[in-house]
Amino acid sequence: MQADPAAEPVKRARGRFSRRRVLGATGAGVAGAAVGLAGGIGVARASVTTPTAGGPPVYPFYGEHQAGITTPAQDRLHFAAFDVTTSSRTELVSLLEDWTEAAARMTQGQGAGEYGPTSGPYDAPPDDTGEAIGLPASGLTITFGFGPSLFREAGGRDRFGLAARQPAALRRLPQFPGDNLDESRSDGDLCIQACADDPQVAVHAIRNLARIAFGRAAMRWSQLGFGRTSSTSTSQVTARNLFGFKDGTMNLKAEDPTGVDAHVWVPGGADPKADWLAGGSYLVTRRINMTIETWDRQPLSEQERVIGRTKAEGAPLSGGGEYTQPDFAMLGAGDQPIVATDAHVRLAHPDNNGGVELLRRGYNFVDGSTSLGRLDAGLFFMAYVTDPRTHYIPLQTKLSSKDGLSEYLQHTGSALFAVPSGAKPGEHVGQALFA
Amino acid sequence: MQADPAAEPVKRARGRFSRRRVLGATGAGVAGAAVGLAGGIGVARASVTTPTAGGPPVYPFYGEHQAGITTPAQDRLHFAAFDVTTSSRTELVSLLEDWTEAAARMTQGQGAGEYGPTSGPYDAPPDDTGEAIGLPASGLTITFGFGPSLFREAGGRDRFGLAARQPAALRRLPQFPGDNLDESRSDGDLCIQACADDPQVAVHAIRNLARIAFGRAAMRWSQLGFGRTSSTSTSQVTARNLFGFKDGTMNLKAEDPTGVDAHVWVPGGADPKADWLAGGSYLVTRRINMTIETWDRQPLSEQERVIGRTKAEGAPLSGGGEYTQPDFAMLGAGDQPIVATDAHVRLAHPDNNGGVELLRRGYNFVDGSTSLGRLDAGLFFMAYVTDPRTHYIPLQTKLSSKDGLSEYLQHTGSALFAVPSGAKPGEHVGQALFA
Repeated sequence: MQADPAAEPVKRARGRFSRRRVLGATGAGVAGAAVGLAGGIGVARASVTTPTAGGPPVYPFYGEHQAGITTPAQDRLHFAAFDVTTSSRTELVSLLEDWTEAAARMTQGQGAGEYGPTSGPYDAPPDDTGEAIGLPASGLTITFGFGPSLFREAGGRDRFGLAARQPAALRRLPQFPGDNLDESRSDGDLCIQACADDPQVAVHAIRNLARIAFGRAAMRWSQLGFGRTSSTSTSQVTARNLFGFKDGTMNLKAEDPTGVDAHVWVPGGADPKADWLAGGSYLVTRRINMTIETWDRQPLSEQERVIGRTKAEGAPLSGGGEYTQPDFAMLGAGDQPIVATDAHVRLAHPDNNGGVELLRRGYNFVDGSTSLGRLDAGLFFMAYVTDPRTHYIPLQTKLSSKDGLSEYLQHTGSALFAVPSGAKPGEHVGQALFA
Repeated sequence: MQADPAAEPVKRARGRFSRRRVLGATGAGVAGAAVGLAGGIGVARASVTTPTAGGPPVYPFYGEHQAGITTPAQDRLHFAAFDVTTSSRTELVSLLEDWTEAAARMTQGQGAGEYGPTSGPYDAPPDDTGEAIGLPASGLTITFGFGPSLFREAGGRDRFGLAARQPAALRRLPQFPGDNLDESRSDGDLCIQACADDPQVAVHAIRNLARIAFGRAAMRWSQLGFGRTSSTSTSQVTARNLFGFKDGTMNLKAEDPTGVDAHVWVPGGADPKADWLAGGSYLVTRRINMTIETWDRQPLSEQERVIGRTKAEGAPLSGGGEYTQPDFAMLGAGDQPIVATDAHVRLAHPDNNGGVELLRRGYNFVDGSTSLGRLDAGLFFMAYVTDPRTHYIPLQTKLSSKDGLSEYLQHTGSALFAVPSGAKPGEHVGQALFA
């Protein structure tokens, strides 16, 4: 990825940003509310702090691929899916333009709009909501995707003239065995993934993009995640999921460009309808509730048997360390395989799935508790793949029926998005789709 | 607060911890599930990392007052309220013993039980769930409280022989004007506040305490918070709430022991029924939803008028800097007060409330989005006070009917707890109540 953040995006925003649109939505009436509070007008108005060298990471927004995919997984997530509420293709494009500009600004530690939270006209709503004032960029990445329903609604209607360009792979995910999906936590026309090392920064990004979308798209669902579970870089230690086990040991890493090319990016020429998606990816999201109260009452032996790894080190039960390859043929007591036939590590391993690898980017979540007094908790699974028909659907079909771990899981949300390649300065995200 | 963490609590845990109880719940059957997996048994089992000097803060658990009140507010919160499900006073006391031991361990960066997540018997459930392996204590504090219903149920029943010791101030909070309370997010027999600088550590604490409570208490509701909004120490900068304004500028600070003594701790002798609570405090929790979409469409002038402070600096509209006292008498254009008569800063100021000050400890929250496509977001308000009858109820009665800010707020959860003083090593939290 390359970018010239210094040249962008302040100049482009001028005279074109949706600030006018936001104002228009409330109408002229609000102008009348402006009063000459001398004490308020006179004070200095701080802008969002510009990140400095040596501080928290700042990732370029523009580049060959969107940031937030192979970027080293940040600690916190706010993910949101949107339904487009306008029927105008022009308005949809203008939304993507405005989102692109705001995302380019916020990822560099600036406010969502050209004025920032406190420097605009006193009688107008601020073009940034302000809760990130003084916070650094905190490694913020903002990644956009398009759901199948953007191309063709459930009823088949082609709202935006995009049906002819719907990739063959971009279809609503099938119902898998054991799925208990909540419609209100699934699907969506558009999605935004905001990852940062500070949750206030990730929340600020989604909140401002939702504000900018007002009148054109409405939030359908959103999900916070507080602990990354999958390293996407060899520079990161493997984190733990809420089963207490290391998660993502075998994950694809950014330092393996051959693997990433083979398993993550959509190649050009594969699908004539999907040429616009070359250099992009598909994002599978699954909200996976864990029945942790049941899990917590299992013996350590059973927990390790189900996973196929030790809890302490994350080493395969066949021996070695975390990064040792499992020996699926090794037999133990009673001539039974040491790595059980229904162990998660066996069923999910690339060797047992035609070499398929995923770039996972999941987060732990706890959304309070249920009416039964249990934590509403689990893993918000995200995986970037070159084609969900080869890289997710067969694997999940197998896991959902055979994996011993599935006894402790319930999938409650599901979505698939096409994630276009990165934008160049002057473009909006997904511009090739509308060309 | 003093403590000798080195001497505690490993020795005390031996032979008394509820591990046996947890095992008992699953019965002897689980022992049969233990199998001799050579690879699993043989590997080294890491324990939870012991914090080292110079690393993230480690706060003593034992002391005169409970930690987590005047402790510099950590960045993340997991709060949980519980209903006691046993009718046995003995079982209730044993729960408080077990919680005390586990909390003393976890706050020092150790596992919840004596064996830790991976070092116990292989055929038994681990006495720690493991997701905090390798994470430091991260400033974890765990603070316990007792709700009015522990003393007397809604129907009046005295389940545990505690009714005679219910403090006069410990009554369910009244319904305030505009309240839209969700029963399932309100009240509770017991509460636990877990604060830490790492959300995974706070979640781990609540999850393990809920696990330990199995069969004796069940979670009633829980709340995650991701950004502290109130400094409790002069060493902290004032953070921002989701209105984008600095919150807690006037908060009581730990460095003001006279103010803390006067406004936070319960004095001895004030209420003969509450002698057991001397050195403790009352905790008010209010889940306050913000209608941020409406707020975001208000002009900056209106936002500042409603708060009575500038958004950038947090200075009173009457001039000066963040810590300048507001001049409520100053007149501006049209001889109107510069700090409006319904401005939040005016109505909440100690000078206009008989000198009452609160020790606030609130957190921002975002719990996904509503069916209307709006963020389910706001402030989880927490305040520690010497007496809610003088220090919260009159103030909130006024704010809920007169504060201009209340137009943008909806209170959806409410609870009051008595928070006993700190435990000495060898005691359990709240032991004086049961003496």
